[in-house]
Amino acid sequence: MENQHYQQLVRTFQRLSRFSHLSAVAGWDMATMMPPGGSSARGEALAELGVLQHQILTAKNVGEQLAGAEQENLSEDERANLREMQRAYAQAALLPESLVEAKSLAGSRCEHAWRTQRKNNDWQGFAPNLKEVVKLSREEAAIRADARGGSRYDALLDIYEPGMTSARLDVLFSDLKGWLPDLLQQVVEKQASRPCLDPQGPFPTDRQRDLGLHAMTLLGFDFEHGRLDISAHPFCGGVPEDVRITTRYNEEDVLSALFGVIHETGHARYEQNLPRQWAGQPVGQARSMGVHESQSLFFEMQLGRSPAFLQHLLPAIRQRFGDQPAFTLENFITWSHKVKPGYIRVDADEVSYPAHVILRYEIERALIDGDIEVDDIPGLWDEKMQQYLGLSTAGNYQNGCMQDIHWTDGGFGYFPSYTLGAMYAAQLFSAARSALPGLDDSLAKGDFSPLFNWLRDNIWQHASRFTTAELLTLATGETLNTRYFREHLTRRYL
Amino acid sequence: MENQHYQQLVRTFQRLSRFSHLSAVAGWDMATMMPPGGSSARGEALAELGVLQHQILTAKNVGEQLAGAEQENLSEDERANLREMQRAYAQAALLPESLVEAKSLAGSRCEHAWRTQRKNNDWQGFAPNLKEVVKLSREEAAIRADARGGSRYDALLDIYEPGMTSARLDVLFSDLKGWLPDLLQQVVEKQASRPCLDPQGPFPTDRQRDLGLHAMTLLGFDFEHGRLDISAHPFCGGVPEDVRITTRYNEEDVLSALFGVIHETGHARYEQNLPRQWAGQPVGQARSMGVHESQSLFFEMQLGRSPAFLQHLLPAIRQRFGDQPAFTLENFITWSHKVKPGYIRVDADEVSYPAHVILRYEIERALIDGDIEVDDIPGLWDEKMQQYLGLSTAGNYQNGCMQDIHWTDGGFGYFPSYTLGAMYAAQLFSAARSALPGLDDSLAKGDFSPLFNWLRDNIWQHASRFTTAELLTLATGETLNTRYFREHLTRRYL
Repeated sequence: MENQHYQQLVRTFQRLSRFSHLSAVAGWDMATMMPPGGSSARGEALAELGVLQHQILTAKNVGEQLAGAEQENLSEDERANLREMQRAYAQAALLPESLVEAKSLAGSRCEHAWRTQRKNNDWQGFAPNLKEVVKLSREEAAIRADARGGSRYDALLDIYEPGMTSARLDVLFSDLKGWLPDLLQQVVEKQASRPCLDPQGPFPTDRQRDLGLHAMTLLGFDFEHGRLDISAHPFCGGVPEDVRITTRYNEEDVLSALFGVIHETGHARYEQNLPRQWAGQPVGQARSMGVHESQSLFFEMQLGRSPAFLQHLLPAIRQRFGDQPAFTLENFITWSHKVKPGYIRVDADEVSYPAHVILRYEIERALIDGDIEVDDIPGLWDEKMQQYLGLSTAGNYQNGCMQDIHWTDGGFGYFPSYTLGAMYAAQLFSAARSALPGLDDSLAKGDFSPLFNWLRDNIWQHASRFTTAELLTLATGETLNTRYFREHLTRRYL
Repeated sequence: MENQHYQQLVRTFQRLSRFSHLSAVAGWDMATMMPPGGSSARGEALAELGVLQHQILTAKNVGEQLAGAEQENLSEDERANLREMQRAYAQAALLPESLVEAKSLAGSRCEHAWRTQRKNNDWQGFAPNLKEVVKLSREEAAIRADARGGSRYDALLDIYEPGMTSARLDVLFSDLKGWLPDLLQQVVEKQASRPCLDPQGPFPTDRQRDLGLHAMTLLGFDFEHGRLDISAHPFCGGVPEDVRITTRYNEEDVLSALFGVIHETGHARYEQNLPRQWAGQPVGQARSMGVHESQSLFFEMQLGRSPAFLQHLLPAIRQRFGDQPAFTLENFITWSHKVKPGYIRVDADEVSYPAHVILRYEIERALIDGDIEVDDIPGLWDEKMQQYLGLSTAGNYQNGCMQDIHWTDGGFGYFPSYTLGAMYAAQLFSAARSALPGLDDSLAKGDFSPLFNWLRDNIWQHASRFTTAELLTLATGETLNTRYFREHLTRRYL
């Protein structure tokens, strides 16, 4: 057999991908459908599968085949696939099975209990579970850092955003910290002088759901290969052939669920448009969490909150909730661009959002590197919220450090992806505008296809063929910088 | 380690059970939630897991451990567990992996396409898929029959109803065929002379769902460990810790979905009350499909259609759909006991139901034993429907031979379980009445707990500790016979 090592690897990764499919469905079900009593059996089942996947990926013969395949006569795409296989192998082979299983179990337990504990503002109940997750995440980080060099936190960061380091993040984030607070203050002051009516609810859940489905249709979501449901924490899950997005509804807020749906639709279209010929192979997967987030923010912020898109949305909103003074076009756009520092990251406007991420980044880095402990989190959270956004979260855990799902199952290192994504998205939108001279006209006519085609050609179809830096450079002509994000915020908000 | 062979087996079967958990969730999702485009990836994922489970179960060391455990010092329960392990191993070890995978794939494909084809009455589209499933099922049956002796069909029957043979079924079913047609005719004639008002719809789906949830509550369904959804073909799936039942709604029919729900609730309570200390072990599983069906029919027919239960249901029905002349107690009971030969097995009354099963049994036995081919099915179906129930299904595939899901994924040998279950249920209810002198009083008061406690003590808690024959004898004092089923039908309908 030609390239027999490589072909055996392809079969192994196809197998792993099929098991990941089942894990993704069971995970989606756990968050959307599962009754509470199913939790512990589900956690055990997922952990068992996780151990199996770990065994398959780290089997001795995989290491040998990877070495063997290096010598084989591979195409450029196959070589990119091999590079991603090696990365996956190296990431996994480091960890002992017992740690993988313990982390999966502790994560399931913590996440499941969190769903109730958050509602009850129960930090005392949550903290012990989180400590266990942190303990195991630190063990993981230590093992990874020993193998690759660099800090413990960097070792986790690299899982989600390959090639990124906290040194580089510090540069980017301190750039943001240099101008964003001023910009935020100016925007808040400017908006304070401009009257704006709030839409008056209630906005019934079933009509919000219908509106979300309408927006998904406008944005090209493929309902033959996906669906929309409800979960405590919105996410995009499932598999490329069957993408499951979720949202949560607040009957007093006409837009929060909708823009959640638009956000997840960005993730979903990336997944739905990954190249099918590489299905199940590492090179066929989304590039990184940051690039993934760039697609969701491209949809939510760059396109979704553009005046052109808001103008297309407004009749659909009026149709479902009736007309009211807040629904004049001018007021609606003004209101949709409202900037108001708040407690909740997922509800944050795009100007205050980076502060939420930088806060989490600073806390989780210190936590993983061992500079602080879980018990320090609520105090630090309160302190940084006051410093960055002028808000106190003292005693308010559910809207403070218990608001996010990420840490519950050990997803430390993920948060920076959000703000990397925002910066990628701005840089990509700017490049798309340069590449598509008639873009603003077509957006004004409600024709989003040129934009989606550009994304398909420049991002989606490449999957993991290139590194993130290469992908961004090919698409935009330059490496990541904060300039386009700053220009975008300045143009839209000042 | 004491009993080390046995302990290793316990770990292996726990692992298999966890994989079955994921397979059950993914299967439930496929039938209730999955968009059409997810089908082929899901089929591949489930097939991959099926192959893995097959590999684990049939690994050489399992055979050795089973032999070794025979010599170990096991308790009675452990020995029963070992017996069930050996049965599972023997069932599985016979089949080559390639056949297991091919059958899983062909079954997924056929079942998925059937969901659309049935709606379109598309026998031409369905037949080629079914032929592939039949071909693989025959291969399976041949391998099993070679190993155990007996006919090919008996080899499949034994999967669902261990210890049952077509020779024994022929005796039981020819007994039924001896008196049931006369009884059916007498009942139809008797009812023709008694006026009965039909409830007038529509009965909105959401209220039907609410009524179903109410009935589930009355019947002790544990919503912490289960839920109710919609699927094309109602089923009880999931795992004992999280039982998923489904129904389908017809807005013109007030009872079909409800009694479907009551039926599945019987399955669900059996699963939910299996002994937790044996969770994940073969001895902790439901005894057989026939015993499972005895529980659903106990709920649906013995209890659910009893005048006492119908009396408790009626106010809940009036509350949700308003009052109407058909909802007097007398008319409602008369109407609920209406016997009318029809096309659809799952909608059939309990007097005509056995004819549906005997028809399927005769066709599937001939199909597996090679006496007929797939192309013969529609003609035979029509012929037997005319003979047994006086109805023609010529050209009407969707309400004829395409109505059931069972054959689509190769579940040949399952159908007899339904009528075995009806006979077990009648025999069990009669035994419960003898054992519980105040039973009718407590049922009239709406207190079903004595009955459920009797089921728990005599059936649910025993799981697979005994053979079916032993279980029935322990619970009722005698082996299976048709007497109690005949008495039940005669008392209720004549």
